[in-house]
Amino acid sequence: MFSTDTAQVLKEQVATQAQAAKIAARELARKTSEEKNAALELMAASLVASKHEILQANAQDVSRVSATGAAKSFIDRLTLTPARIQSIADGVRAVMALPDPIGVTQERWQLRNGVLVERRSVPLGVIAMIYEARPNVTVDAATLALKTSNAVVLRGSADALESNRAIVVALREGLRASEVPAEAIQLIESVEHESVEYLIRMRDAIDLVIPRGGARLIQAVVESSVVPVIETGVGNCHVYVDVDAQPEMATKIVINAKTQRPSVCNAAETLLVHTDVAPQWLPQALKALQERGVEIRGCARTCQLVPDIESASEQDWGTEYLELIMAVKIVDDVQEAIEHIARYGTRHTESIITENEETAALFLEQVDAAVVYHNASTRLTDGFVFGFGAEIGISTQKMHARGPMGLQALTSYKYVGHGSGQVIE
Amino acid sequence: MFSTDTAQVLKEQVATQAQAAKIAARELARKTSEEKNAALELMAASLVASKHEILQANAQDVSRVSATGAAKSFIDRLTLTPARIQSIADGVRAVMALPDPIGVTQERWQLRNGVLVERRSVPLGVIAMIYEARPNVTVDAATLALKTSNAVVLRGSADALESNRAIVVALREGLRASEVPAEAIQLIESVEHESVEYLIRMRDAIDLVIPRGGARLIQAVVESSVVPVIETGVGNCHVYVDVDAQPEMATKIVINAKTQRPSVCNAAETLLVHTDVAPQWLPQALKALQERGVEIRGCARTCQLVPDIESASEQDWGTEYLELIMAVKIVDDVQEAIEHIARYGTRHTESIITENEETAALFLEQVDAAVVYHNASTRLTDGFVFGFGAEIGISTQKMHARGPMGLQALTSYKYVGHGSGQVIE
Repeated sequence: MFSTDTAQVLKEQVATQAQAAKIAARELARKTSEEKNAALELMAASLVASKHEILQANAQDVSRVSATGAAKSFIDRLTLTPARIQSIADGVRAVMALPDPIGVTQERWQLRNGVLVERRSVPLGVIAMIYEARPNVTVDAATLALKTSNAVVLRGSADALESNRAIVVALREGLRASEVPAEAIQLIESVEHESVEYLIRMRDAIDLVIPRGGARLIQAVVESSVVPVIETGVGNCHVYVDVDAQPEMATKIVINAKTQRPSVCNAAETLLVHTDVAPQWLPQALKALQERGVEIRGCARTCQLVPDIESASEQDWGTEYLELIMAVKIVDDVQEAIEHIARYGTRHTESIITENEETAALFLEQVDAAVVYHNASTRLTDGFVFGFGAEIGISTQKMHARGPMGLQALTSYKYVGHGSGQVIE
Repeated sequence: MFSTDTAQVLKEQVATQAQAAKIAARELARKTSEEKNAALELMAASLVASKHEILQANAQDVSRVSATGAAKSFIDRLTLTPARIQSIADGVRAVMALPDPIGVTQERWQLRNGVLVERRSVPLGVIAMIYEARPNVTVDAATLALKTSNAVVLRGSADALESNRAIVVALREGLRASEVPAEAIQLIESVEHESVEYLIRMRDAIDLVIPRGGARLIQAVVESSVVPVIETGVGNCHVYVDVDAQPEMATKIVINAKTQRPSVCNAAETLLVHTDVAPQWLPQALKALQERGVEIRGCARTCQLVPDIESASEQDWGTEYLELIMAVKIVDDVQEAIEHIARYGTRHTESIITENEETAALFLEQVDAAVVYHNASTRLTDGFVFGFGAEIGISTQKMHARGPMGLQALTSYKYVGHGSGQVIE
């Protein structure tokens, strides 16, 4: 039962935290790179020093969630160990070592009237992060926000509440010894979904919302947010094996894209195969996938070619399985592959395997996705692999930031004009 | 009376036009710079050739709107003349002459695994433009969209409906002789506000919404849109005259910022004056403003200093007058000016007048706005003055594009990875 009174109290609490973050953001915007890095080091040290409390809190989450019969993989992602905490702290120090993206003059030019204009990078202000179980996201988000001089309002899931609480206590304890206000990190502890709804309507305090998690969470935030959102993560990714593909390379890439880590957004979900290579290549490729535990769902032509596989339904083409299932479709040519991707893809990552440069160029040009590859696995789409040194998520929208988002994605810019009395005539 | 049936018909019609734009956008994305420029030239020529029809349609709008007793300035902005049509056509040709911002490799680097990654500029897809009376916006939006390989769905106001219709007929007639599909320009002719509501919820067809007009229109779109929005234009801009200001320069800039064109978003609304220069400078500055027809609304200290002016209320500090009214406040120092702007400003354009470089640096650093000036008029914030060669609006948000938006603001990018079989180990 969620009464009007409770709702009002919750709304005010979320507003209070958002406003505190806004005030902290203004203060944070004035800190130097050195002050921010010192704060990050203190955060990392405090995480390690609070290892005991964090592990204890995490054990509570794990035992509660285990009792509900959650999947082993889910519990694994939720579980912290001393080694994982150390590795999370190392991650904070890795971000610390990156160049400061704030206060950089990106461009500078003189107007015809003599005014010298600079385009200078600035923080966004307050970032709200709405995410599901993994507690390391709490540290990642706080770290990347602080490095870019942004305050952050964290809203994790109920499953990781105790872990998130203990982590934020540790992070803020670190900040208390620094020049950065501890209020720059806010954790919304309410697990009522209303707390999300309030947060994403606070346009005067929140500058950006980043949802990270399942398709349903992302969809709900995108639908209701009044604050600008960066949509992340849903990846119905395809690998297209062309008539001119090198067969061993094709098999290696398809296996990697599907099985190396099936639960992530850049894993492949559908295999598209040129009709002329299907008879020779497809049966052995599907056998190799099946040997690695992959369930195949084929189009009519695939089922004809390879017996004993399940038929794909219309729904399969649009599904992000996130597990060891792969839809397979034989197409007449690259154009049909491009059309299939345009219809069912989620604009995340798409790959073509071919030795034909012309076919590759057509695919790379015409497929509309954040990342398109020629002869590489979809799994490469990642901020660390891309050399950004950090990743706050992978954007599947076209505004502001697209694809793997590093520190740059958490910045804006302002124009600074130096004049000597110029006016408009 | 707006029945459910009518609503359904309207919704389907808007959806049909949005889908047609989406299909046209895919085709348009494949056109070369030469094909796009040829199309722009044909659009410009067709506008001039259709001068008679456009003027006739515009005369209907003007007579209908005049009958409602609209303000003279409003009717003036609505009215087209042969010279204005020529100048609008010249504007199309000016955009044509700009470099093509699409297909540009912005960055290129090699991953540690050997994959060569390019960041390549791409169109956004379909842009919905929701705007008020000025019919030249119809041409501007269509031109900038086409130059950036985007399709556009235009939703103008009832006041300019006949003019917009005639203009779009002319533009599409031009496109019919070109390689660019005429469906790339769509005009929503319904003036029901529901047509806007449907449009801003069509996330599968529309990639970006740009509202251009009054604060109420912008607010309504921002509140309800599910499609990403770029917020434009509300400008409660300030000029701060510091203790170290050069007095003649201060007067010249304040007069320019307030009176050169008071109806636009980059005109100044509030004057902030350092208490130590107020006695000598303020009386004569306000006199100069009053001589130019400006009504002054002063804070208590200002009213004490200058007799016979109206008192400013709390509401005045937050008002974008867009007319010859100026609020005036005496402040103790630059810090109070910065705080006042943080509280009441709309993050558009703010200016400090001072000969003190340190004070200027503090203001430029700490004021959060799209554009901050030292010793220049707020009126300079403009895509043409900035040398962008075009302007689709002035963004007052921090995501994607900030400040004057030229062609670049209508682009996104994709990463293109060239591999030789790379996978994630």
